[in-house]
Amino acid sequence: MTDNKLKVGILGASGYTGADLVRLAASHPNMQLSVLTANSHAGKKYADVYPHLANMNLPDLIKIEDANWADLDVIFCGLPHGTTQKIVASLPKHVKVIDLSADFRLRNTETYNEWYGHQHFAPELQKGAVYGLSEHYRDDIKNANLVACPGCYPTAVLLLLIPLLKAKLLDEKSLIIDAKSGLTGAGRGLKLNTLFAEAGESMSVYGVAGHRHAPEIEQELSVALGSDVQVSFTPHLIPMSRGEFISTYANVAAGVDINDIKNCLRQAYLDEPFVRLQTDGAGIGTQYVRGSNHCLLSAHQDRIDGRVILFSTLDNLVKGSSGQAIQNMNIMFGFEETLGLTQQPMFP
Amino acid sequence: MTDNKLKVGILGASGYTGADLVRLAASHPNMQLSVLTANSHAGKKYADVYPHLANMNLPDLIKIEDANWADLDVIFCGLPHGTTQKIVASLPKHVKVIDLSADFRLRNTETYNEWYGHQHFAPELQKGAVYGLSEHYRDDIKNANLVACPGCYPTAVLLLLIPLLKAKLLDEKSLIIDAKSGLTGAGRGLKLNTLFAEAGESMSVYGVAGHRHAPEIEQELSVALGSDVQVSFTPHLIPMSRGEFISTYANVAAGVDINDIKNCLRQAYLDEPFVRLQTDGAGIGTQYVRGSNHCLLSAHQDRIDGRVILFSTLDNLVKGSSGQAIQNMNIMFGFEETLGLTQQPMFP
Amino acid sequence: MTDNKLKVGILGASGYTGADLVRLAASHPNMQLSVLTANSHAGKKYADVYPHLANMNLPDLIKIEDANWADLDVIFCGLPHGTTQKIVASLPKHVKVIDLSADFRLRNTETYNEWYGHQHFAPELQKGAVYGLSEHYRDDIKNANLVACPGCYPTAVLLLLIPLLKAKLLDEKSLIIDAKSGLTGAGRGLKLNTLFAEAGESMSVYGVAGHRHAPEIEQELSVALGSDVQVSFTPHLIPMSRGEFISTYANVAAGVDINDIKNCLRQAYLDEPFVRLQTDGAGIGTQYVRGSNHCLLSAHQDRIDGRVILFSTLDNLVKGSSGQAIQNMNIMFGFEETLGLTQQPMFP
Amino acid sequence: MTDNKLKVGILGASGYTGADLVRLAASHPNMQLSVLTANSHAGKKYADVYPHLANMNLPDLIKIEDANWADLDVIFCGLPHGTTQKIVASLPKHVKVIDLSADFRLRNTETYNEWYGHQHFAPELQKGAVYGLSEHYRDDIKNANLVACPGCYPTAVLLLLIPLLKAKLLDEKSLIIDAKSGLTGAGRGLKLNTLFAEAGESMSVYGVAGHRHAPEIEQELSVALGSDVQVSFTPHLIPMSRGEFISTYANVAAGVDINDIKNCLRQAYLDEPFVRLQTDGAGIGTQYVRGSNHCLLSAHQDRIDGRVILFSTLDNLVKGSSGQAIQNMNIMFGFEETLGLTQQPMFP
Repeated sequence: MTDNKLKVGILGASGYTGADLVRLAASHPNMQLSVLTANSHAGKKYADVYPHLANMNLPDLIKIEDANWADLDVIFCGLPHGTTQKIVASLPKHVKVIDLSADFRLRNTETYNEWYGHQHFAPELQKGAVYGLSEHYRDDIKNANLVACPGCYPTAVLLLLIPLLKAKLLDEKSLIIDAKSGLTGAGRGLKLNTLFAEAGESMSVYGVAGHRHAPEIEQELSVALGSDVQVSFTPHLIPMSRGEFISTYANVAAGVDINDIKNCLRQAYLDEPFVRLQTDGAGIGTQYVRGSNHCLLSAHQDRIDGRVILFSTLDNLVKGSSGQAIQNMNIMFGFEETLGLTQQPMFP
Repeated sequence: MTDNKLKVGILGASGYTGADLVRLAASHPNMQLSVLTANSHAGKKYADVYPHLANMNLPDLIKIEDANWADLDVIFCGLPHGTTQKIVASLPKHVKVIDLSADFRLRNTETYNEWYGHQHFAPELQKGAVYGLSEHYRDDIKNANLVACPGCYPTAVLLLLIPLLKAKLLDEKSLIIDAKSGLTGAGRGLKLNTLFAEAGESMSVYGVAGHRHAPEIEQELSVALGSDVQVSFTPHLIPMSRGEFISTYANVAAGVDINDIKNCLRQAYLDEPFVRLQTDGAGIGTQYVRGSNHCLLSAHQDRIDGRVILFSTLDNLVKGSSGQAIQNMNIMFGFEETLGLTQQPMFP
Repeated sequence: MTDNKLKVGILGASGYTGADLVRLAASHPNMQLSVLTANSHAGKKYADVYPHLANMNLPDLIKIEDANWADLDVIFCGLPHGTTQKIVASLPKHVKVIDLSADFRLRNTETYNEWYGHQHFAPELQKGAVYGLSEHYRDDIKNANLVACPGCYPTAVLLLLIPLLKAKLLDEKSLIIDAKSGLTGAGRGLKLNTLFAEAGESMSVYGVAGHRHAPEIEQELSVALGSDVQVSFTPHLIPMSRGEFISTYANVAAGVDINDIKNCLRQAYLDEPFVRLQTDGAGIGTQYVRGSNHCLLSAHQDRIDGRVILFSTLDNLVKGSSGQAIQNMNIMFGFEETLGLTQQPMFP
Repeated sequence: MTDNKLKVGILGASGYTGADLVRLAASHPNMQLSVLTANSHAGKKYADVYPHLANMNLPDLIKIEDANWADLDVIFCGLPHGTTQKIVASLPKHVKVIDLSADFRLRNTETYNEWYGHQHFAPELQKGAVYGLSEHYRDDIKNANLVACPGCYPTAVLLLLIPLLKAKLLDEKSLIIDAKSGLTGAGRGLKLNTLFAEAGESMSVYGVAGHRHAPEIEQELSVALGSDVQVSFTPHLIPMSRGEFISTYANVAAGVDINDIKNCLRQAYLDEPFVRLQTDGAGIGTQYVRGSNHCLLSAHQDRIDGRVILFSTLDNLVKGSSGQAIQNMNIMFGFEETLGLTQQPMFP
């Protein structure tokens, strides 16, 4: 690191996550993008793949095997699951790794094997990985060499529920999570159901009772509570590009009321720059976080006694992915945590 | 009724519901639109208000007080709640009324008063009103003079849950309904949150724990079960024009499994032309019902034992409103029930 | 043809054009869908490919080579260009063919070869093909065995300009056509730029000075005028699924004014059920034709003397494709021309 | 101005332009938002009107008459046309004014009176106003006390055409401008045609031969050429929130070819950070500028000899409004011109 700038590599830079990392890096004073890989686009200019970033002075895309790791301080990995494990295992020790894939999120490699359909390739690395939910694992992230950034859905769910389960305010057997996501959550791959003509003016459900973010959510809620938690988790596809909205239904623990819930959430994030409980009367929607690293929360008493309705919303490509990854980088390298992340939401 | 055509009036014809009634009437061999009222647009051609229907040969818009009821066989009322009660009370007896407002949906006028904020103006008419959920009140509708068409959300929810509660397959205390609707559900009035620039690329929640469709849903579920039912009901606004999608989470009754649920729904609608349980593997989404009078259902076992996830989708302006109203008219006048309603969904 | 129903085949039934043919056929009393081919989906139920049409009783998808032509009265071809020529050449003589591809639109096979990059495979069939712009080639279509339906852009442009060029009201050297289309115009193939996340909230231009609909437009305008016409034609991609909007800029011929233009268009389509000149003050937009076989026209004097601004709009999948194809079938078989095509536009 | 921060007022801060000024100011190191006015929302927190900006520490909204001008260095005016003239006339002399309305754009007050329907209220101020097209009036802006920022359409058109007319490369009688805009261009007022249900999945034309941006475009093109220019200008409404796309058709001057056009545009903006000619083969669309202060240009030879097709795109709320206003502020106060405007486009 010369002149205070980190030399940064992005592996798998041709996905939407990669593009948003590059976009955000443009506003970060301490990031120098030195290596951008995308095996299927190797040799191209980055602007050929993402014309909106043609104004930036970026290195051309290369293959992973052509990257010179020696010069790098940190890499962001946005590779398909499975792939990252082998590559990370082969990196020089001095390079810190911020992984945006699912490869190191599950502490239990058995659970990984079951949900991802193959044996984990680097179980020993898994042991050293830190779960990168910035607000809740800040101290561990500070000293980590390998940070596994949470999935977009888990980020939104966990920021909402971890404080409440830690404080034992909810009946953990009652958690029902109805999740909604825009189309970028499905990635840039060519799939029939993500065509404009199919997804526009339409909404549908997918991955019923089988989405891979469920075990990740359960893992972290179990840590928070101190015992096993299982949740209903059902994701829906919404005709918008960015944004994620979580509606959670739960029964409160005995003696708890809605004010306890609100106070707990307000206290938990009082000094956090990116997470905020909406005041009563303020609405909540994806339009209030679009393009920013913000996460908004909201809590309501249901008409049925003992039941509460809780909401959480974020931009899946920012706080749900690239933004939180940069937030973790800031923590790992001792920068101010908001550095490069102060862009306000873009509305309309 | 000469030449087998009903003389039809539409009161409040300038709303989206009115426009879709007119659109569907164009394909109905037995409907002659004789009176179209819209007090704020009286004197205009209908094409001035809805240019897409300029090809039809329609009467001009008039004020309600200028309508000649004597010639009419049936009227559809799409007026704001409260208004309809007085008007219906003043109509000649021979005119059958199909009401699309909320005025006669709630059997208990106390409940009406509480949720709608004023004393019901025609409680004696309320007693004679039939709840127009076609598939479940067909026999009553046949002989009714006043049919209160269900709200769009209740239609979607009740088609899904009535058979299951009747058969006592669900724990009625566990019902959590997460509802999603497109923008036409909010009507044609000018509201900030329904502007394209506000609602596009955005989703949000509204009416948390206070939506007026909740008591209507509870009323009919209680009838189905034979005892009081209360539900969590939370509606969300989705950036699309048409379509409604209901995600329901429930615990099954003791000894019941997912196959019982599926069999019950399949049997309930085996001979119904407009309601269908999706087979396993077939997706479910608003795009499969857009513009049609269809309602699709789908049932799934959750990962958590004893819990099921149920979906329902329809076009809020058709099966959720104008289409079901015409279906009811067909029943009331002894026509084939599908008459004028055989248009297939429009996708993309 | 028994019981007055045509036995109909659709080749290439898995595209959007095929799906809209099937949708419209559901409302046509004289069409029986007997053969549906889609080589890449052969063996599947049609509902597996288009779930929104699961309510219809349709034959399964088969390969073209497995079709039994003997029983068919008419086939609609929605195959990629090039393919149709060979297949049509091999059909039994009694089967009438309505082609929706570009294979037989260009009378001059040299022009075809140049724009489509290969020698025409059936130049002798080309000679017998009739250009299926219903309103202008009605008499030829009546007796045709092979009708080449116009492209979506040409349909919109030609309905607007043919009457004006025939009447010599415009300076044919001045024609500038700025075309806008929704995403279904790009078909159901998987392309990066038609993903929701790429095309949503975006508009762009494509095929500048090289779109294959240009020579087709020029061919027919030249016929109308009686001498060669060349046009500027520039298509744009708009974030909507259906709809096409044409803005044309032209200088009038000497002594002509805007009223001549309006009168000419009004007269030309006075008795046409599907084409209409908007009156002054009425707006024009794709929302007024969506889902219908309608085409709307509009004509305006520019601020610059001698220049006029002309608009045309239609649904690319209906009047721009499947609807006009059925209109042509009605003409070919002596049915009322509007049969099965009376659905009104769907707005919103 | 203490601590190098300008004390900034925004008049009419409740429109979309105001909101984007506030959003961009959050990333500008030298702007302190001291006064925000919105007469109809006076007394509210800014977050009540724009919840997405609740994270910023902003003054509450006040009435214009309650503003303390003495402390301010610069004000941005986003008021309806007509209003600004009186207010600006009453301000203390030390306050620099950057006006985003149409009030001071037209040098000829006769033209203003004609197009805006009332006598100009401050014709003497008009004389001192500088037209704020940053790249072309930089020197004048530097010394101005009153800058009239161009309209969104004029910005896009003029950046494209001024260099070409200055260099006399185009036949100025041949200019045809087909403009497309997203819905934010229509403002935050409640209008039927800007509802999601009306504008979504739809496109239409408006203001044919009568849009107020036409005289502004003609004024500046006439200055560039040195003699009177008249253009055809036709705006269309596109179903997206942000973005503007201009398609211009023109004949080249004698002896000019497309390379001359490209070279001229490339040279004109070689050192400009915000304006760029796309290279051949690179696409052009609103998605490549969304949320940024960028303007992209593109030039193409038509199939017709002597005719060229030119494109221009920008975000109407940024380079077309708030972004250019801040760029002008940077010029007026001697800051680096890109200060606070380095955010990259947001795609998807």
